[in-house]
Parts: sequence; C-alpha cells; structure tokens
Amino acid sequence: MAAATLSRIGLAGLAVMGQNLALNVAEKGFPISVYNRTASRVDETLERAKEEGNLPLRGFNDPKDFVLSIQKPRAVIILVKAGAPVDQTISTLSDFLEPGDCIVDGGNEWYENTERRAKQAAQKGLLYLGMGVSGGEEGARKGPSLMPGGTRAAYDYIHDVVTKVAAQVDDGPCVTYVGEGGSGNFVKMVHNGIEYGDMQLISEAYDVLKHVGGLSNEELTEAFADWNRGELESFLIEITADIFTVKDEFGSGELVDKILDKTGMKGTGKWTVQQAAELSVAAPTIAASLDCRYLSGLKDERQAAAQIFQDAGLESSFSPVVNKKQLVDDVRKALYASKICSYAQGMNLLRAKSTEKGWNLNLGELARIWKGGCIIRAVFLDRIKKAYERNSQLPNLMVDPEFAREMVERQAAWRRVVNMAIEAGISTPGMNASLAYFDTYRRGRLPANLVQAQRDLFGAHTYERIDRSGAFHTEWTKIARQNKATSKAFN
Amino acid sequence: MAAATLSRIGLAGLAVMGQNLALNVAEKGFPISVYNRTASRVDETLERAKEEGNLPLRGFNDPKDFVLSIQKPRAVIILVKAGAPVDQTISTLSDFLEPGDCIVDGGNEWYENTERRAKQAAQKGLLYLGMGVSGGEEGARKGPSLMPGGTRAAYDYIHDVVTKVAAQVDDGPCVTYVGEGGSGNFVKMVHNGIEYGDMQLISEAYDVLKHVGGLSNEELTEAFADWNRGELESFLIEITADIFTVKDEFGSGELVDKILDKTGMKGTGKWTVQQAAELSVAAPTIAASLDCRYLSGLKDERQAAAQIFQDAGLESSFSPVVNKKQLVDDVRKALYASKICSYAQGMNLLRAKSTEKGWNLNLGELARIWKGGCIIRAVFLDRIKKAYERNSQLPNLMVDPEFAREMVERQAAWRRVVNMAIEAGISTPGMNASLAYFDTYRRGRLPANLVQAQRDLFGAHTYERIDRSGAFHTEWTKIARQNKATSKAFN
Repeated sequence: MAAATLSRIGLAGLAVMGQNLALNVAEKGFPISVYNRTASRVDETLERAKEEGNLPLRGFNDPKDFVLSIQKPRAVIILVKAGAPVDQTISTLSDFLEPGDCIVDGGNEWYENTERRAKQAAQKGLLYLGMGVSGGEEGARKGPSLMPGGTRAAYDYIHDVVTKVAAQVDDGPCVTYVGEGGSGNFVKMVHNGIEYGDMQLISEAYDVLKHVGGLSNEELTEAFADWNRGELESFLIEITADIFTVKDEFGSGELVDKILDKTGMKGTGKWTVQQAAELSVAAPTIAASLDCRYLSGLKDERQAAAQIFQDAGLESSFSPVVNKKQLVDDVRKALYASKICSYAQGMNLLRAKSTEKGWNLNLGELARIWKGGCIIRAVFLDRIKKAYERNSQLPNLMVDPEFAREMVERQAAWRRVVNMAIEAGISTPGMNASLAYFDTYRRGRLPANLVQAQRDLFGAHTYERIDRSGAFHTEWTKIARQNKATSKAFN
Repeated sequence: MAAATLSRIGLAGLAVMGQNLALNVAEKGFPISVYNRTASRVDETLERAKEEGNLPLRGFNDPKDFVLSIQKPRAVIILVKAGAPVDQTISTLSDFLEPGDCIVDGGNEWYENTERRAKQAAQKGLLYLGMGVSGGEEGARKGPSLMPGGTRAAYDYIHDVVTKVAAQVDDGPCVTYVGEGGSGNFVKMVHNGIEYGDMQLISEAYDVLKHVGGLSNEELTEAFADWNRGELESFLIEITADIFTVKDEFGSGELVDKILDKTGMKGTGKWTVQQAAELSVAAPTIAASLDCRYLSGLKDERQAAAQIFQDAGLESSFSPVVNKKQLVDDVRKALYASKICSYAQGMNLLRAKSTEKGWNLNLGELARIWKGGCIIRAVFLDRIKKAYERNSQLPNLMVDPEFAREMVERQAAWRRVVNMAIEAGISTPGMNASLAYFDTYRRGRLPANLVQAQRDLFGAHTYERIDRSGAFHTEWTKIARQNKATSKAFN
C-alpha cells in the first residue's frame, strides 16, 4: 500500500461512541481506518460515512489489515467497554503494531488500569494515552470534550487531530494535554462525579418546585428555560427544560411523570467517592448524589417504608408555598450555591490527586475544556477557569472573591429552601450536604475539640491545644470522678 | 517442659492493648505466655502481673521459647500494628508453630489482609482468626467486646478463654463467632464507622447547645448526664458529661475549650465509607463524620475562610434560643433519631457484605456483643438486638415497628433542631445527612425519574416506566424541538 493512501489515524471499537467519534475525525479531514470484529458494525459505519458526505473512512474487520492501513508512527484510538475488552483489543492489535506506535484508550477506564497498560505497552516500545471522552453520542459526533493523559510525546502524535475534533469554544478547543499516567482517566472520573452532583441538585430543585411549590410541568419548563438564560445556563438545565415538554405517547400528561424513579449508574461516581475518602477530601455533595442513586434503586423498600411511617402516624403540617415566583427565585439561588460547593469538592479532589501523583494538573485549564462538548458544559465553568487564573493556588473555589460574593448573596435564599424542604419532608440531600460543607468550611472553630477529648479519654490518642504547642494527654475519667466526689462532699 | 506447666494460650505484642488483654486473660485463670521483641515491654508486663495479684503470666523475648511454652494445639493472639508488623510477627512465630496451631490477629486489620494470611497459614496447616477487639485500654483489661472471625474450628480453640475475657452483660459475654474469613475484621471496621458517626452526632449536639442555646459547660454536663439516664444511655454520652467537668490546669475555665479542633483518625472510618460505596449502600451519616474529620484538619483554611466570608458581608440574623430546656429536649430527640439512621446504615453495610461473601452474619447477635466492653456500648443496642430478633430480614432498622414509632415521635423536634442550626449557620452535617436519609428512604416516589430522563436523553441509557414493563428510549431533544416549533407557529 502506498504511503499516500495510508490513513492518518485508526479507531477500534464501533459501538455508538466509536462510530460517532470516527465520523467526526473523518469529517474534520483526517482519513481514518476503523476496525471492529463484527462485520455489521463496520458496514454500518461505512454506510454512515457515505451518507454523511463520502467522509474519508475505511473499514476493516481484520486487525492486521487495519493496523497496516495507518501511517507510521501509528495512532489507534480504542473505544470499547472498560476493563477486560480493552486488554483484549490491545492484545489483538499489538501483534501488528510496531515500536513507536501509540494506543489511545478513549473509555471510562479506572486510571490504574491505564497506568498498568502503559507500562506493558512501553515494554513493546509502544506509547499509550488514556483519554477521557465526554459528551455522549452527540458530543462524539459533533465535538466532545477530550481529556488525554499519558506521555507528552504520545499526545503530540494526536494533537492536530484532537484539536480539530474536540468541541470549540470562545477560548479554543475543548482538549488539552492533561498530564502524565492515568491523569486523563482520573479527570474524566471526577468530571462524571461532578455530573452526578449536578443531576442530583437539579432533581432536588425539581422536587422542591413540584412538591413544595406545586409547579406544573409547564411551569417547570418555564422555570428551567428561564434559569438557562442566566447564571445556571448549561446543557443539563437546557435539557431539563426540554424534558418537561415531552408528552407521554401511551397516555395523557407528560412522559417524565411515567418514568420509574430508579436510577442506573456506571462505576465512575462510585470511584470518585472512594477516591475522595482515600485522599482525605470531603466531597459530600457528590457522595449524596451517589447515595441517592443507591436509595432510588430500593423502590419496593421505599414504598413499604412510606406505608409503615404513615401507619406509625407520620404526618406533615406543612402547607404548600403560594408565592411561586419567590420560590423559583430562591431555588435557583440554592441550586447555584450548592453547585459551587460541588465543583469545589471535585476540583479539590483533582488537586489532591495531582499532588499525590505529581501530575501537575492545571485546574483552570481543565475547567476550560469542560466549557464545551461535555455533559457538564456551562457558562459557570468560565467563572471557575477565571478563578484559577486569578489564583492558581486557591485552596477552595468558595473563597475566590467572586464566588464568595455570590455565595453570600445567595445564602439566605439557600437556607430558606433547605429549611422549607425539611419542614415539608422533601429530602434535598445534595443541597443539604452543600450547605453543611459551606457552613463547616467557613467556621474557624468546629466542635472537633470534643471529639479529640473523647479520643484522648478512651484511647489515649492525645490532643493539641489552641494556646500552646505539643501533644497533651489528660486522665479525664480520674479527674471527673474526683470532681464528682468533691461536688458530693460539698452538697 | 512438662505438660502441666504449659500455658493455656500465648499473646505476642505488648503495647498498651496487648499488655492489658494478657493481664485480663491471666486474671480469668488462664495461664498465659507473653512475647515481645523488646525485653522492657516483657518486664513491664511481668511487673504488672505480679502487682495485680501474681497473675499466671510468663514472659519471653525468644520466639521459640515462647511458642514451646504453650499447650498444643497452640493458640497465639497477636496484638501489633496492622499491616507489615503482623506479617513480620507471623513469620517469626511460624518457624516454631506446628500444624494444628492457631494464630489470632487482634488488630484493626483490613479484612482482605486477614483472608490472605489465613490462606498462607492454611498452607502450613495453621488455623487463623481475625478478631476485632474494641474497648480501648480499659476494655482490654476489664472486658472488651470481641469479634472473632475465621474458621469455626479455630474459634473452638479459644472459645472458653474469650467467653471469660470479654465484657459480660445481662445476656452473656460480649463475644460470638462472627463468621468465616475476614468477617471479624469487617465487623470491627463497621463498628468503628458507627463510632465515628456517634462521636460526630454528639459533637453536633454539643455545638448546637453551646452556640444556638448558649449553654455553659456546667449546663452541658447537666444535659449530657441527664441524657445518660434515658434512651441515650451509653459510654460516649457518659464520658461527654465527664469531659465538660475537667478544668484547664494551665488557666481558667474548662479544658475542653482549650483543645484544638483538629481531629485525628485511623483507617477504619475511611474503609467503612469506601466499602459502603462499593456495596451500593448509602451511609451518609458515617460519611459526614469522616468528612468532618477531614475538614477539621483544615484549621488554617477554615480560619481564613471565616474572615473572607465576613469581609464579603456574611452575617447571621439569628437570635440565640431562650428556652434552653426545650432546646435540650429537642436536641436529645434529634440525636437519638439521627443515631437510629446511622446504625441502620452500618447494619445494612454488614448485611450487604455478608451476602456478597456468604458470611451469614447474625445482625442481632452482633448488636448484642456491642452492648458491653466497646466504645459504642449503649442501652440502645439492646433495642437493635430485639429488632433483629423480631425480624431477622428487617430491610432497614428504621422500619422496625418500635424504631419507626420512635422516629415518628421525634421527627418534629429533629426538624426543628436542624432548621435552627441552618438558620444560625451552625453546621450539623451528621444530623442533616441522617434526616435526608430518613426522608429519602421513606418516600415511595423520588425525583430520580428526572435523572433517568436526562440519562436517556444524553446517553441513550433507556428508562423503565411505572405503568408497563420493558426498557424504553425516547428521542427527547427531537420531540422537544418539534414542540417548540409548534408552539411558536401557534403563538
């Protein structure tokens, strides 16, 4: 095969994401070879490439022919299910790849798997990248947010391609070289954790508006559409407004009310919560959103519990809100303030991991590449980018002067909403967790002194003092008993 | 050495816990051999055994002599730091142990390490137990709560000893055969997670009483001492009452106010939270207590944040409570209800793991062995025991008829306390998380339907319906656009 006919890049794995990303690459003018074991997947992709304007895409179901059709040094993107299928695909392709070639895993992979595979690849002289890809089906086709991590040299191989393929926003393409090792996967994992948080907070806002405010689906659409013209402007708010407009094809009313309230999930939210615990980072909003997915799954238990507590006499004396306009405004503020807390947790988790691994992550730049293409894309992310530009060492997003001001402006409304929900018995775990996070972080003095006293009493763990240095231990029980004896003697 | 002079059991590792447990064993009439590499530790223990009434205890710093001094089949308890020191001690002793002998690790070990070591021990014909030991220094000496897991045959070797050594309560000794594998360590880990939750909730009660109610340390002692005569009667409430009575030896006032509000920790709380996420169990109260330990550590950041938000105009319009008696009563109820939620989370985590591993844990029996000896010992645990006796398949503690009734009786006070704290800007993350857990679990319908709609819209994840079976997918965006177009056409 003459060099002139070789493809610029290859892509293996033609499920929905793979097909769409391949077409996107081809559309941007990069000839691409695609590969799948199943011939029908390849045919489907070829068909689409033809339909969508004779895009420069060639299909293979023989791995050797596929690899040899790509120009050297080769770059091959893999888009298969995380875990064993990735190992399998690498093994299949490795037989034909040559030293200097590069593998790019675009799945939602656990970052340590990427680091293991990168080492194995290096033994064969292959380069390796773990690249987070966000944006779902549509993003992959039209411009996703891309988070490639691994060796810098490997990134340079694909720089021209990913720069064109990624979503484009005012300050550039939504892609950057994230850092060494599995950093690309880790950043994507935290992105997903933040996405869990956003979705949970939106669902709570919906719940409060619907059950405390009594808003109809039409009013909900209006509220969310209105919010999407302000500080909350984002993909998730936009689609939420859309969702309430869809009628049920099987009956009357809107479809959203007929959907079962059990939420599915993949592994990234769970990993985010586990990593936060591992790295001593509080991430209560993200954790609350994971918990709610778990609790949502217990539909039968919840229905039984509702009956049991009703039988046990639980009743609410709460009366629905009459001033809907005020409520919508308050809930918007509560949602925005809660969102700041959630992003603060995610960014601090990234920083903690970056420190541990020496990744040198640029938090402002990561916020920038999330501005377009991905599920959490939002005007808000530009504010985060700017906060880190003002101070790259910002210990917490909340204390950036702009965000601090915004939180102060919204806190009264935020407290009103949470209190109202508590009175009404409508749980808002994400907003609650965010508010508790805010109120804990901004207190110079916490009641942790009591916890330390308890630990010293029963475990001799010692404590520090506020007024002198050193580790102290006190015979609390002995002294307390003496005090009691003295007090009795005097009484 | 004649058989008559052999010890009934051995104990290796003579730090505080080891010394105290060895003396406890000896005092119960079981001749014990103790071993430590450091001679001074051995001497110290021998000295104490002599002082405390010529207890039958022999000391060794030669591992061979130590092992040979124990009657066969031998049982040796190891009490060293979890991790590498355990492996080292096992390696040292294994040279002299014989097939049929048994190793009992009494440390706070990660349960998988125990399972790994048990396998290795089995290859040498040795039996193995991982035994959780709770109660701190005093518990070890006077009667701890013991949670041994591993092969049943190994437990039978030590049954007579641990039954005497453990704390004794009305319904027996605080020890039981927990189950196979690393179940003993896992149960101890969850015990510690619950302990984190209890301590956090108590510190929040303290915070609210002090900063919302303006209670003095003397009034706090009264409140906690009073609580300790009712439903909250427990070791942690009792010591809390004591703590407020201890004066500062370096100045005026009470010591508790001089203690730095930064909380230390070991690994068990973190593992509990990570395992909950792993097993799809919501454990928000325990997670909140872990987060608060992390946030307490950021003292400098918190002090800076307090200033930043004050400068940004944050102020509270909250006026302190005047009816202290009512507040104390409300906080007691909030604490009790929150505690039920926290224990429900811990017990469900145990059940989930038991199912995964086939441990067949008896939750009621585990509650029973926590009634004495350990840090979370409380009258309350008898209620939990009884709840599981009433229904061993109880899906959640909260829906036991007795607990359900108690929660219903307390929920109004609980909401008042949390609302007041939120208004005052006093964070009560544990009580908040508990209340949100309660309000989420007891709702037949959650807003998770919206989350499912969002996931279907952007990721084609499909959804289920409440009124017909199957997995459905909708072209949300397409339909929403048509709706908008239609709506415009008509306007």
